[in-house]
Amino acid sequence: MSTSPRAYTRPLDIQRGRIDLNHGAGGRASAQLIRELFLPAFDNPALRQGDDGARLPPAQGRLVLATDAHVVSPLFFPGGDVGSLAVHGTINDVAVMGAQPLYLTASFIIEEGFALAELQRIAQSMGAAARAAGVAVVTGDTKVVERGKGDGVFISTTGLGVLADGVEVGGALAQPGDAVLISGTIGDHGVAVLSQRESLGFAADVRSDSAALHTLTAAVLAAAPGAVHVLRDPTRGGLATTLNEIASQSAVGMTLDEAAIAVNPPVEAACELLGLDPLYVANEGKLVVICTAAAADAVLAALRAHPLGARAARIGTVTAEGQPFVQMRTRLGGRRIVDWLSGEQLPRIC
Amino acid sequence: MSTSPRAYTRPLDIQRGRIDLNHGAGGRASAQLIRELFLPAFDNPALRQGDDGARLPPAQGRLVLATDAHVVSPLFFPGGDVGSLAVHGTINDVAVMGAQPLYLTASFIIEEGFALAELQRIAQSMGAAARAAGVAVVTGDTKVVERGKGDGVFISTTGLGVLADGVEVGGALAQPGDAVLISGTIGDHGVAVLSQRESLGFAADVRSDSAALHTLTAAVLAAAPGAVHVLRDPTRGGLATTLNEIASQSAVGMTLDEAAIAVNPPVEAACELLGLDPLYVANEGKLVVICTAAAADAVLAALRAHPLGARAARIGTVTAEGQPFVQMRTRLGGRRIVDWLSGEQLPRIC
Repeated sequence: MSTSPRAYTRPLDIQRGRIDLNHGAGGRASAQLIRELFLPAFDNPALRQGDDGARLPPAQGRLVLATDAHVVSPLFFPGGDVGSLAVHGTINDVAVMGAQPLYLTASFIIEEGFALAELQRIAQSMGAAARAAGVAVVTGDTKVVERGKGDGVFISTTGLGVLADGVEVGGALAQPGDAVLISGTIGDHGVAVLSQRESLGFAADVRSDSAALHTLTAAVLAAAPGAVHVLRDPTRGGLATTLNEIASQSAVGMTLDEAAIAVNPPVEAACELLGLDPLYVANEGKLVVICTAAAADAVLAALRAHPLGARAARIGTVTAEGQPFVQMRTRLGGRRIVDWLSGEQLPRIC
Repeated sequence: MSTSPRAYTRPLDIQRGRIDLNHGAGGRASAQLIRELFLPAFDNPALRQGDDGARLPPAQGRLVLATDAHVVSPLFFPGGDVGSLAVHGTINDVAVMGAQPLYLTASFIIEEGFALAELQRIAQSMGAAARAAGVAVVTGDTKVVERGKGDGVFISTTGLGVLADGVEVGGALAQPGDAVLISGTIGDHGVAVLSQRESLGFAADVRSDSAALHTLTAAVLAAAPGAVHVLRDPTRGGLATTLNEIASQSAVGMTLDEAAIAVNPPVEAACELLGLDPLYVANEGKLVVICTAAAADAVLAALRAHPLGARAARIGTVTAEGQPFVQMRTRLGGRRIVDWLSGEQLPRIC
């Protein structure tokens, strides 16, 4: 991001102004937008250098990179907005690799006519989420597309983290006999966004669980060194899709216990009304942990000791199957296959 | 990026198929798109792990991060496309920090209805550009937005590089007396995109200069250790805006020599017809170097010895001014101020 001289420029009218194509053209208007709107929201030394990228100190250990585009609609929802989501989502992708996130980059694609006041609100929310997580937004980019060629604002974030020696987690490392745990209730994020999108009054008190999980993953790894095989945040496609991905990557099966999987009552009610299965509804602040059975109690205790894991539960077991099927023991004592999400449930949920 | 089982899934119909919202929902269709279209285009070990991010070896030295959103319209133009541009643009942002680029991430925002054949062509172009540059695309993300909420495909790329000890370049480091050099002709990229957009027949032989500059920057740094103060690629806003940014960051003036700045004749003709000044037209494969006057000949020789710098020239001098003005001695012997780009010249040029 670059700065420009203040001469000959009136301050942005953030209360009433709107984005126009000049704000993406790389000239004086672009520089003013960065200087008056983005820099104050994200302020940090790397960003203030005003170059085409960020200069950062050396990092000890293996590196982890993760990236996510955020196209959630609507942009603001109970419990968050596209800005905080873009910070949390990418921090979490780094964290579930077992790494400590250090830095974020942010690139904005803004539709012509978007209100500067909304953009400022989103940038400030991003900045606050990043500061709360201790992960600075060190460089960025802004592009503007014509009215009708975008939808408000899309934000792509990339996270860089460091992976401590000895930490080896990954979707391909689940072993038969391992325990499957989750840090809390499922479906909250998806229902919060949907309730806002569809103006569902009865679900108005459902808030997104959007949160940065890196201190939770660090606590889990510290509680059971070497015994944690997989960490994953069950976002798009929900818990069911995430577990199917892991089963496929690890060539194992899983058996879940439906009674152990917690769903907040208003989330359950909304899902029933809308014909959704909460197993397939996105989460943005939940952690799946797969670890040795011997370590399961220690991991569960570490999850529950953290504010984001108070309702953690052991929900199933990894099995040796010929096919990577995820099965569930239902509350009524039956068994069913929990398949991949195959159709669209909730577009633009993150 | 995640993989999924092959069972129960017909191969993508890349010749006739189109993107639908399912391809962004994180379920089976997303996994298939990644497995059948993106993975073959970008193939590398980090990406094949199929986790939420990429695990990478430790890197020696200071780190550099840079990010760019690419919204160029049209998506294909003479000399490149949004895919190769997304690779080159971000490699160049890392390179002009003085760093060696190591890895890229890529996040795609695709409009519902976009042809799979075009997406594959773009992904293959990205993969080819990355392989040619020796910089792997190690992780990515794909989101889909409804028809009319995007425009084909937008690609955000982030680059990670390492900065060798002793290399200190930055927009704030230009010194009075320094020489200003550029690696070749200006305006080629912008006119190539515009000629495609507006179907300008007379400019049909203008090709974008889109190219990865990291070997050129390395050659420049090696030719004059410690004497190179600023490296910058004059993209959006063109050479004029880039030099104004540097003047502002360094609190210096500059005097340019119009006769030394080369413009390809068809680019000049197109600019005249369209009322554009090539000084403000985007480049995607040109390098501005500001170095000590003593090192200017060595830097010029290094530029000219590289295939991307054959037409390099010394175009001006850094001056000590009260205001950070860029001035130009015209061909006719006059002087004029080269201001920032203040209005929109070419929207969605990169």
